[in-house]
Amino acid sequence: MTLEAIRYRSGSLQILNQLLLPHETVYEEIRSVRDGYEAIKSMKVRGAPALAIVGCLSLAVELRAGAGGDDLVCFIRDSLCHLTSARPTAVNMGRAARELMEFTENESMEKNTEQLRDSVIGWIEEMLERDVNDNKKIGNYGAQHILSGVPRDSVTILTHCNTGSLATAGYGTALGVVRSLHTLGRLKRLYCTETRPYNQGARLTAYEAVAEGFPATLITDSMAALAMREKGITAVVVGADRVVANGDTANKVGTYQLAIAAKHHGIPFYVAAPSTSCDLSLESGRDIVIEERPPEELTSINGVPVAAPGIEVWNPAFDVTPHQLITGGIITELGVFLPSELQAALTGRLTAL
Amino acid sequence: MTLEAIRYRSGSLQILNQLLLPHETVYEEIRSVRDGYEAIKSMKVRGAPALAIVGCLSLAVELRAGAGGDDLVCFIRDSLCHLTSARPTAVNMGRAARELMEFTENESMEKNTEQLRDSVIGWIEEMLERDVNDNKKIGNYGAQHILSGVPRDSVTILTHCNTGSLATAGYGTALGVVRSLHTLGRLKRLYCTETRPYNQGARLTAYEAVAEGFPATLITDSMAALAMREKGITAVVVGADRVVANGDTANKVGTYQLAIAAKHHGIPFYVAAPSTSCDLSLESGRDIVIEERPPEELTSINGVPVAAPGIEVWNPAFDVTPHQLITGGIITELGVFLPSELQAALTGRLTAL
Repeated sequence: MTLEAIRYRSGSLQILNQLLLPHETVYEEIRSVRDGYEAIKSMKVRGAPALAIVGCLSLAVELRAGAGGDDLVCFIRDSLCHLTSARPTAVNMGRAARELMEFTENESMEKNTEQLRDSVIGWIEEMLERDVNDNKKIGNYGAQHILSGVPRDSVTILTHCNTGSLATAGYGTALGVVRSLHTLGRLKRLYCTETRPYNQGARLTAYEAVAEGFPATLITDSMAALAMREKGITAVVVGADRVVANGDTANKVGTYQLAIAAKHHGIPFYVAAPSTSCDLSLESGRDIVIEERPPEELTSINGVPVAAPGIEVWNPAFDVTPHQLITGGIITELGVFLPSELQAALTGRLTAL
Repeated sequence: MTLEAIRYRSGSLQILNQLLLPHETVYEEIRSVRDGYEAIKSMKVRGAPALAIVGCLSLAVELRAGAGGDDLVCFIRDSLCHLTSARPTAVNMGRAARELMEFTENESMEKNTEQLRDSVIGWIEEMLERDVNDNKKIGNYGAQHILSGVPRDSVTILTHCNTGSLATAGYGTALGVVRSLHTLGRLKRLYCTETRPYNQGARLTAYEAVAEGFPATLITDSMAALAMREKGITAVVVGADRVVANGDTANKVGTYQLAIAAKHHGIPFYVAAPSTSCDLSLESGRDIVIEERPPEELTSINGVPVAAPGIEVWNPAFDVTPHQLITGGIITELGVFLPSELQAALTGRLTAL
């Protein structure tokens, strides 16, 4: 991997400011939970897994610097609550917060403040390492599943948004699948959509593709159906901000439209997500609250106005793809599952395909 | 109508430079066929009907200034050939060129050079007037057809690209239908896609919507399917660069994807186009050559780079929507027809619905 979006050493955290990519490579120091919240809210860091990691690491560095004083449990609870509120649609931060809080409460019964501080920091550091390992498993499972349908040929993948090293602790989810295919010498070409309104595809996925040497072509979001018809797309692979119990998936806006187009062309549609992005507490996608973001994201680019002044704007950040359209499967670190199998698989009642 | 994109008086032509909209309103003088070619090629003027009108009017002003000398027929032929080559996908300029050339050759047998000059200029001026009248008919036929399905309610329309006053001699085609609905007091809301990569929706349709007081909302191209599911879209109405004999339609890239999404949601999909945009000489959309445009249109906006340097780009300007997806009908100045009825209708063997 050539890209390092999150630089962490004990007591020190720097993140690559993704708002400035691909033209400027600027790392920013994150010294506190407040810095972490601000980085998430302003989208300097994005991607559901990375949000949770940067959020928790921001807590780790503030803890290492001695924050929290004697009432450590209360400080950790307030910090996690604040971090979770920065981007409510992504489930990972909420899940990490709950798990870390449970861990903290248990540990606090047996340990003194300084011991508790160390064990909470240790928990967060393990989380970072686990994310990279899970992504490598996702990449391998996904690549094998896609290749099982095309025994000898190389494959052409279409993806949306950014789900690579820049969205995770490293390796990537959907782009991790692409990375695995490339490593196996089986990636013919990657088509990446520019992903309006925030252009994560044009800025970030294209940046990663160039950096890693993937054969890759940038298209507008509206060219995806045409690419499916004309360019021999083997599979569509996207990430997820949240997968719920029935397999319905919230992801970057435009995912739903891609899934409809893939279905129309008979092209398998995959969602790649760690099990930490799965939220079995919600039954269906109807229960997911979709974040709406400011009109300016759509009406200006890099501060330059591009739309007619005075026009109203609708800017939902995500959409929900119903499980019926996820025809390829949901790729997790535990294996590839049909949406109908997901719940059983994640609760240990089904083994990987 | 408050917008005047083409200002013509005998011997004088000015066009609104649409590359500078919506922020600057700059009219440019077109003095010659060379100026007309340049304005079309650089997309200062766009929209299939407007291309033909500006092209022919540029010839009219150069003729009025005395160009062509004694060999007027040869000058007109060369000029029309040159103008047709500027944007090959749009059929209107090619058709206008053929008709005007036939007219010129017939007239040249009976008239002297100065009489011929006057009659060619007269033909072009009539073409300008006819376009506006045809668009008003398109608007009325389309509005009536859409409203026939919703007897009392107001309707919500989704459109793509720009097909309004800025794309035609005035009134518009698909946006003319919206204009008619608004005039009838039956337009609840217009959703317009920004239409990447050239942002004609964000720049031009949004500009017209604000100027005309349509209740309108701008979305990214990738939000269209979500809008269909969440916002009660009654119908999708788009324009056409070329409609061929079986009803297959070439239009701004992204149209195909919208048509697939509309089909998925059971929402009628209409193409609004004057009969001059219909090319019965081609049997199906497979015969349409799709223009590919420079990568820079996608990788920069207003000269500001937005994509990662070094990424490859695919930038088809148009796509072809197969007639099976045009479920509402093709709206022409002669009436609304199913794709299967188009050929008979245009050759006079079928009357309007």
